[in-house]
Amino acid sequence: MSFRDLHHGDRPLLLPNAWDVASAVALVDAGFAAVGTTSLGVAAAHGVPDAAGLARAETAALARKLVRLPVPVTVDVEAGFSADAGEVGDLAAELASFGVAGINLEDGRSGGVLADARDQVRLLRVVKERAPALFVNARTDTHWFDPAAPLDSALARCRAYADAGADGVFVPGLAAPDQVRALVAGVDVPVNLLHLPGRTTVAELAALGVRRISTGSLLFRVALGAAVAAARAVRDGVPLPSDIPTYADVQRRSGG
Amino acid sequence: MSFRDLHHGDRPLLLPNAWDVASAVALVDAGFAAVGTTSLGVAAAHGVPDAAGLARAETAALARKLVRLPVPVTVDVEAGFSADAGEVGDLAAELASFGVAGINLEDGRSGGVLADARDQVRLLRVVKERAPALFVNARTDTHWFDPAAPLDSALARCRAYADAGADGVFVPGLAAPDQVRALVAGVDVPVNLLHLPGRTTVAELAALGVRRISTGSLLFRVALGAAVAAARAVRDGVPLPSDIPTYADVQRRSGG
Repeated sequence: MSFRDLHHGDRPLLLPNAWDVASAVALVDAGFAAVGTTSLGVAAAHGVPDAAGLARAETAALARKLVRLPVPVTVDVEAGFSADAGEVGDLAAELASFGVAGINLEDGRSGGVLADARDQVRLLRVVKERAPALFVNARTDTHWFDPAAPLDSALARCRAYADAGADGVFVPGLAAPDQVRALVAGVDVPVNLLHLPGRTTVAELAALGVRRISTGSLLFRVALGAAVAAARAVRDGVPLPSDIPTYADVQRRSGG
Repeated sequence: MSFRDLHHGDRPLLLPNAWDVASAVALVDAGFAAVGTTSLGVAAAHGVPDAAGLARAETAALARKLVRLPVPVTVDVEAGFSADAGEVGDLAAELASFGVAGINLEDGRSGGVLADARDQVRLLRVVKERAPALFVNARTDTHWFDPAAPLDSALARCRAYADAGADGVFVPGLAAPDQVRALVAGVDVPVNLLHLPGRTTVAELAALGVRRISTGSLLFRVALGAAVAAARAVRDGVPLPSDIPTYADVQRRSGG
């Protein structure tokens, strides 16, 4: 099934987000049909903050390895790692050239401000022109920056981005059922939402017509928390969790 | 407290092993006095097997970032990522030059064979000559390859490595209390063992005279297992673990 087709199956595409090769391979082994990356995870793994445009090389290097996986891979490229649309287009073309199936491109900019919608439309047009086959998921940060933002702000941007050629739209932070339903009804491309633990479930979002559900940085943060908890457990002599992959499991998955 | 001094405190040094910047920063935040790296974790994160000599560049690049941490950092360099002693010396000198406190250097070779002990002694001499201030933890894989190996094989190698200038010795896989006690009594440098969940505890190893206890790849494997379990939990609509760091926590630790 192509990455595009996965947005039109019986159920929404549940997209787990990896931050390195090992996490991606483990998620594929667990049966997920596609893998995304988390820009927070990739940035933090390399010691830089998310959404600051600092992890272009690391993101591209990871993507180049992940395309060896037997499932489609979509890459979170933040805002494109450059204020220059041509450079963002270069990145999209580079990723597409070695087999990446899709990208996420966000309209949030450093400092928590939104790009001018017309500028973002121009950027999306450049990206689609340079990489027509790439599934470009246009993310708007209206509700990421302000969960109480009116739906209209997201809806207007999503429509403009879809008109510019975006293959899907992503509104992380959106969760209210009536708003989700209105967004799905208001755009012609698949809607992607972020899974928000305790606020949304895959079943609920599926019933509302959401076609793709991402875990964002969740798995990365769970992994970090579990590692620190395990270090404390060793220190304090208390039992560790079960279901820990063995050394041999990890070696085998790495080709060893 | 210097890294060397941490081997001579009231309690053994409990050394958690990180695989990227985020995991190292989180462990420092949790209060650990020093951080090591796990060669399995670093290799798997980049999609190559452990102990195959394939992750030299990635290991050095990670080390260069970890030295910014406010605690001593020791780097697992497998068998030195080269069969040429001069190249291993170059790596040791490079790591020392930018502030790495120590390295682990193992005598296991690809295919599960041990290096000739005299060759390993020569290698350790080169490394100490090139990087005299580096805390060189000489690892012997006698019990990693064969947990039922006689203690004498480990003891003879540890003595020879200490005589060659190693600052500490590491015998992963050793756990039997009488063997641990005999090893500690038989060498003049601090003894490091691997924590084996369900088989050893920090308190027991401390009582036997072990001066350093490493988690090896354990935290990395716990993290991977937790990430996959969380992805399945999202898919299946079951609750996630508690104690997940927030997005803001991770951003702050990355300087964002």
